[in-house]
Amino acid sequence: LSTNGGRRTPFLTIEIHPLLMYGRYTQELGVYAKEEAARLRDGGGLRRVTSVRSRSAELLEYEKDPCAKCHVCTSRCQKFLISRVGEDWIFLILLGLVMALVSWVMDYAIAFCQQAQKWMYGGLDSNMLLQYLAWVTYPVVLITFSAGFTQILSPQAVGSGIPEMKTILRGVVLKEYLTFKTFVAKVIGLTCALGSGMPLGKEGPFVHVASLCAALLSKFLAALFGGLYKNELRNTEMLSAACAVGVGCCFAAPIGGVLFSIEVTSTFFAVRNYWRGFFAATFSAFIFRVLAVWNQDEETITALFKTRFRLDFPFDLQELPAFAILGIACGFGGALFVYLNRLIVECMRKQKTINKFLLRKRLVYPAMVTLIISTLTFPPGFGQFMAGQLTQHESLVALLDNRTWCRQGVAEEFDYISHSHAWKHPQVNVFITLILFIVMKFWMSAVATTMPVPCGAFMPVFLIGAAFGRLVGETMAVMFPDGIHADGSVYPIVPGGYAVVGAAALSGAVTHTVSTAVIVFELTGQISHILPVMIAVILANAVAQSLQPSLYDSIIRIKKLPYLPELGMGHHEKYNIRVEDIMVRDVRYITLSSSYREVQEVLMTGQLKTLALVESTDSMILLGSIERSQLQSLLSLQLGPTRRLDHLRRHAQDNGTHTHTLGAHTHLDTMDSPPSPPCTHTHSYTSNSSNTSARHGVRFLVSVIAEWEEQQLDEPVDFNNCKIDPAPFQLVERTSLHKTHTIFSLLGLDHAYVTSTGRLVGVVSLRELRKAIEGSVTVTGVKVRPPLASFRDSGNTTSVSEVTELHKLWNRHRGLSLPREPTPPDMEDQLDLVFLCE
Amino acid sequence: LSTNGGRRTPFLTIEIHPLLMYGRYTQELGVYAKEEAARLRDGGGLRRVTSVRSRSAELLEYEKDPCAKCHVCTSRCQKFLISRVGEDWIFLILLGLVMALVSWVMDYAIAFCQQAQKWMYGGLDSNMLLQYLAWVTYPVVLITFSAGFTQILSPQAVGSGIPEMKTILRGVVLKEYLTFKTFVAKVIGLTCALGSGMPLGKEGPFVHVASLCAALLSKFLAALFGGLYKNELRNTEMLSAACAVGVGCCFAAPIGGVLFSIEVTSTFFAVRNYWRGFFAATFSAFIFRVLAVWNQDEETITALFKTRFRLDFPFDLQELPAFAILGIACGFGGALFVYLNRLIVECMRKQKTINKFLLRKRLVYPAMVTLIISTLTFPPGFGQFMAGQLTQHESLVALLDNRTWCRQGVAEEFDYISHSHAWKHPQVNVFITLILFIVMKFWMSAVATTMPVPCGAFMPVFLIGAAFGRLVGETMAVMFPDGIHADGSVYPIVPGGYAVVGAAALSGAVTHTVSTAVIVFELTGQISHILPVMIAVILANAVAQSLQPSLYDSIIRIKKLPYLPELGMGHHEKYNIRVEDIMVRDVRYITLSSSYREVQEVLMTGQLKTLALVESTDSMILLGSIERSQLQSLLSLQLGPTRRLDHLRRHAQDNGTHTHTLGAHTHLDTMDSPPSPPCTHTHSYTSNSSNTSARHGVRFLVSVIAEWEEQQLDEPVDFNNCKIDPAPFQLVERTSLHKTHTIFSLLGLDHAYVTSTGRLVGVVSLRELRKAIEGSVTVTGVKVRPPLASFRDSGNTTSVSEVTELHKLWNRHRGLSLPREPTPPDMEDQLDLVFLCE
Repeated sequence: LSTNGGRRTPFLTIEIHPLLMYGRYTQELGVYAKEEAARLRDGGGLRRVTSVRSRSAELLEYEKDPCAKCHVCTSRCQKFLISRVGEDWIFLILLGLVMALVSWVMDYAIAFCQQAQKWMYGGLDSNMLLQYLAWVTYPVVLITFSAGFTQILSPQAVGSGIPEMKTILRGVVLKEYLTFKTFVAKVIGLTCALGSGMPLGKEGPFVHVASLCAALLSKFLAALFGGLYKNELRNTEMLSAACAVGVGCCFAAPIGGVLFSIEVTSTFFAVRNYWRGFFAATFSAFIFRVLAVWNQDEETITALFKTRFRLDFPFDLQELPAFAILGIACGFGGALFVYLNRLIVECMRKQKTINKFLLRKRLVYPAMVTLIISTLTFPPGFGQFMAGQLTQHESLVALLDNRTWCRQGVAEEFDYISHSHAWKHPQVNVFITLILFIVMKFWMSAVATTMPVPCGAFMPVFLIGAAFGRLVGETMAVMFPDGIHADGSVYPIVPGGYAVVGAAALSGAVTHTVSTAVIVFELTGQISHILPVMIAVILANAVAQSLQPSLYDSIIRIKKLPYLPELGMGHHEKYNIRVEDIMVRDVRYITLSSSYREVQEVLMTGQLKTLALVESTDSMILLGSIERSQLQSLLSLQLGPTRRLDHLRRHAQDNGTHTHTLGAHTHLDTMDSPPSPPCTHTHSYTSNSSNTSARHGVRFLVSVIAEWEEQQLDEPVDFNNCKIDPAPFQLVERTSLHKTHTIFSLLGLDHAYVTSTGRLVGVVSLRELRKAIEGSVTVTGVKVRPPLASFRDSGNTTSVSEVTELHKLWNRHRGLSLPREPTPPDMEDQLDLVFLCE
Repeated sequence: LSTNGGRRTPFLTIEIHPLLMYGRYTQELGVYAKEEAARLRDGGGLRRVTSVRSRSAELLEYEKDPCAKCHVCTSRCQKFLISRVGEDWIFLILLGLVMALVSWVMDYAIAFCQQAQKWMYGGLDSNMLLQYLAWVTYPVVLITFSAGFTQILSPQAVGSGIPEMKTILRGVVLKEYLTFKTFVAKVIGLTCALGSGMPLGKEGPFVHVASLCAALLSKFLAALFGGLYKNELRNTEMLSAACAVGVGCCFAAPIGGVLFSIEVTSTFFAVRNYWRGFFAATFSAFIFRVLAVWNQDEETITALFKTRFRLDFPFDLQELPAFAILGIACGFGGALFVYLNRLIVECMRKQKTINKFLLRKRLVYPAMVTLIISTLTFPPGFGQFMAGQLTQHESLVALLDNRTWCRQGVAEEFDYISHSHAWKHPQVNVFITLILFIVMKFWMSAVATTMPVPCGAFMPVFLIGAAFGRLVGETMAVMFPDGIHADGSVYPIVPGGYAVVGAAALSGAVTHTVSTAVIVFELTGQISHILPVMIAVILANAVAQSLQPSLYDSIIRIKKLPYLPELGMGHHEKYNIRVEDIMVRDVRYITLSSSYREVQEVLMTGQLKTLALVESTDSMILLGSIERSQLQSLLSLQLGPTRRLDHLRRHAQDNGTHTHTLGAHTHLDTMDSPPSPPCTHTHSYTSNSSNTSARHGVRFLVSVIAEWEEQQLDEPVDFNNCKIDPAPFQLVERTSLHKTHTIFSLLGLDHAYVTSTGRLVGVVSLRELRKAIEGSVTVTGVKVRPPLASFRDSGNTTSVSEVTELHKLWNRHRGLSLPREPTPPDMEDQLDLVFLCE
């Protein structure tokens, strides 16, 4: 009776009661696979520090449902465009409105939190110790609460969210990432985390929050109006607009937001979706700023960090080398940041003792980090040398100031009310303060972003970049106190301009984007430094991209998310790899004449979401693919309660055993309605029925049903009520890895079948492709090399070997009179097919 | 002997001399097809006004080679990425440098031309008639020269160039568009056209010029260094960067240039190419502006049309409705412009007499248009009411001025030296001037852009938009002389801001882009009006997109370029169309056992660049595709001179006819070396050989060779020396039109084979797809509907019919005992195949 393939599920008792066996196919399999994988994971020591939240859930989520969002290959997407534009507008307006409100409320709450800390700190200035305790306790409590709250409510809310959104937009379903629970956890967790004053950013989380808004709004509207809002392809497009809204809201920068979100989340971007992002982001940024005006915070809609650089002669041509050097330095700095961030995570993973301790006490790590950082920034302590009392916002406003902080090497008197006075220390030069600020914030940000709270790294990096730019600018101002313009008029150097350039360059280097340039223009409200910014950002990108992956790609690797890495440049090997080298040859398939038993076996052993349907085992001609769920419903239909009841009735009529069937009827009737949790049902049933006659009846029924089931399983499958995708994506064995990668990226595929003249010979999924790319990228003579790739290295022979197989076929086809060379056994089938078909 | 399929080529005499028959396959076919098509075209009255340049050449160019650039499906693109980055940098720097120089020199020349006209006009102010003649003659001469020069040197240089670049980047080869001749014609033609002062733009042509630069630079570097620069895929990526450079150079707007070029030329954009455009455009814009600084034109690098709006309170929240209305009005205006432009072209095409006259006297049309326009703008005449004496640049500078032109309804005194005084007329209100300017320029621009000179429409539209914005702004200033801010402080309205908004909105509406917003920020050097600009641009786009195609798409339709139109929104029909409804069922194919004669016949009748290779006529299993040129070389190899000579030698040895073979040998030897123009060779040969004995020998040889050729043609083809693409793109019959469209757009396909369980059943090319989309878009009950689409309209049955065929197959497969329903004859083959394969 056990068709479970040797594996037993110890906590499910379904095997003792075959009456409910059909339930196994619909419910238990998923649970079983989940638990099994969780156990494997636990045993294999795969839990790490960043998996303070249980990663098994999220990892399994996409293994469970990896194909549902495939952009092109599902045939469901036929009607999704119909009359959607009208509803799109409404949706995007709603999304923009909601996001603007959310972000405004969050900003308000964060500002309140930070004000509360300042007030506490300020009120206790009589006692240094109390002051210190207040300064330190407040963020520790907030961060610990944030970490704990997120951990309990939804571990998926931890971190930036951009890597996950990138994966989701790639077509992989990470369902737990877009639930209401995650939304609540993210919003509250983020508010607390940012309110603590730690060097954390809100950009990444805002992207996630906006996507959550979009997903929930979609769900809500689908529940209200149905139809269109249920379409998954559409939801993906909306998510991509939502990412733009997230960035746009965060900085009130609609254009930069759209571009940044495209650069960060997409590989191939559909230009027809462009306007959606622009529209939603503009509307959102508009509302976000209007709220500020209504709240009397500002007079009218202006930039968030408005600068007032002079318009007439913003910079001299001869300053450009300095900007270029700043850009290159930022490139190195960005790469270093990404490396440092990854190093910290990997270090703690490797240290088993630390790892174990941190896993048990999950809140210790964030509390510890917060304690150290807030101690170091304590204003009367070390913080006085690094402007520790300023919030990120205040620091940035000060750094982008259009006035020069020091002239002729001596710090000038800061006579204005701005926050710049925090940078001035009676004993210490402004340069020392800036250098200390940069160095300390650099590692602090890298460490802080590894905490298990909702947080991003963009804003801290932006701030460090601004400080670095200010440092360079002040140095320039000292070196050329009267500017460097050769003519008579004096145009002194604007260090604030350098700060803008540095901020754009460093954040561009860390995220591998050029659109940070646009973000700074929108953020400062001035575009006068466009050339220096562009030059620095491009140079920073060039340097950083050649040294390290982007921060988001780095996190994707750390978290092992199912994202297809980019093909690196300049690697010879991967052009010699073909699909046949990486494909899985042992494909699970179903034939037209398969019995239900075979279907059951295939379902038990395979993992892929869809299964191939071939014509017959001999011909192996690929006819289409069937979703796993379709097969499961076929099976439950075949062994379902209605047919079961029918059989029992017929059986009863034949044998005339009345009492038994009566007992059975009652039980079967109770089973008829909701077959949802069959195992618990079984438990309760076996424990409650102490009555012997009923037990007799059941035993008899069990044997009857078991026999009937065996018989049913041997019947060939009836595909009439089954939806078959007649056009699964196909590749041939000779398709190069590069081409495969392009097609997978373009179409957002999860898997593709490999066919040879119509015959199914293998399957390639994202997993194989990722392995192949990562294997070939790191190859330097040591790493795995596909066995067949080696003999194709001598460039020119490629085109010859490409057609060898066809020529063989042709040679054989021409006439059997030619002496046949011995063929490998797996070639035989194909040849037979060819000859038979003539 | 004539296997030419009944068609005779009257001007080629190849048929009288079978000795050279093999040459027909390599050379003549192309020429023949070209001439044939040209004749058909001439006869069918397809020449139109815009085809003052001979369009047959360009139209045939892509028919000849439509697949060579297919982004993914060629298997050649395997090594293109290798170590390319280093060379990319150099290439992009060179491209930027060259384009900056070209555009700077052109700008200089244009300014000189315009100055010359002013000087002539100014010097003759004693005599009104002479002044008029000078004012009118100058542009007429320039435009006529431009039209004539372009016509003679390269008719491909006419027009904007963006539609063509869009088509080329789509993967279609329009080879004549990227030659040195075209470059010269475009640069000189454009300089003259713009120098004439007509309302023409340079943006589109600059995109074309930059692409020409990139293509020529590629060719040049390929000749110097070879290798990488020959890769076509790479060249496409470079072209896409070049488009960005073109726009970037034109406005010194790198970011806007990149975005605009993406929006205008791409459907799906590969984000990994993003940095290329940014880098090249930034470098180019930098050099372009540096040249101006070096030339002492400017002090430092600033925006091209720098504005000086106040930073503190650029606009009030309550002005936003006015901006929104401006945007919506611009949307209608943009749609009207596109409609008007198309109407003019179509009108002249329909009027047969005009059409014929204009075709004969090709320079009359541009001269006439120029005469009318310049007469109307003659400053002492009607031009005084519409600022006729200003160039486009001067007008734009005046319109973007930050001062208000009139207050309290009365025109103020213009006391400054700027060009604004041209707008002031002693008798006429500034409003009348503006309205006249807008109305006159509107139709003038629409007419002028239809002239057969290199010209774009962006800049004139931009100018009209600015004027319209200024009109609205001045109206607002009159209505609210003290601003509309409720608080105490007075912030008067800035009409210049409205001009910026109007310019962005109208140009965005005409081109269907949102990135014009970014362009205006870069152009004016101020980003303070970001929200009004974004709102207006988005609204204008929404209105314009729902009314008309973009100007470039409109031109693509007018020129009938092979571009795949976008799927419109909200059209139900196209989701019910399947590939099987539109595919060509009569596919040209070659089987593994084809004879050379069959190959020859297929080559003579088909037009597609590649031919399908199937296993056999019975099985029809698709094995791959072969390029036409490969087959042609196979044929010429089989019938080539070496084998021919061998045969003749053997023949001579057998028969011992010594004199004949001697004579033949000399002829064959002369033929051996370059078989390039075989027909002229034939001519000279037949005319020169008056010797009778030689003629006897030739006649004998002819018969021998003819016999041998016949024999050779009957042999089966040897595919050993033939490159076969083993993975041509496949679809199934049930693939929806929407899915097909997406795949074609994404992968840049030219055609795809339709297979049914491995069997070739049809082929879909761009042509069919375009027809289907255009057919279904315009369908309102009258237009053609695919015959099979109707019975699938009842929504829910779709999924059922989708699998019907498979179920049929399955039913038959289950057992022959079931009564077989009658099957259509073309189903029989498939069934046979299925049963045989078991």
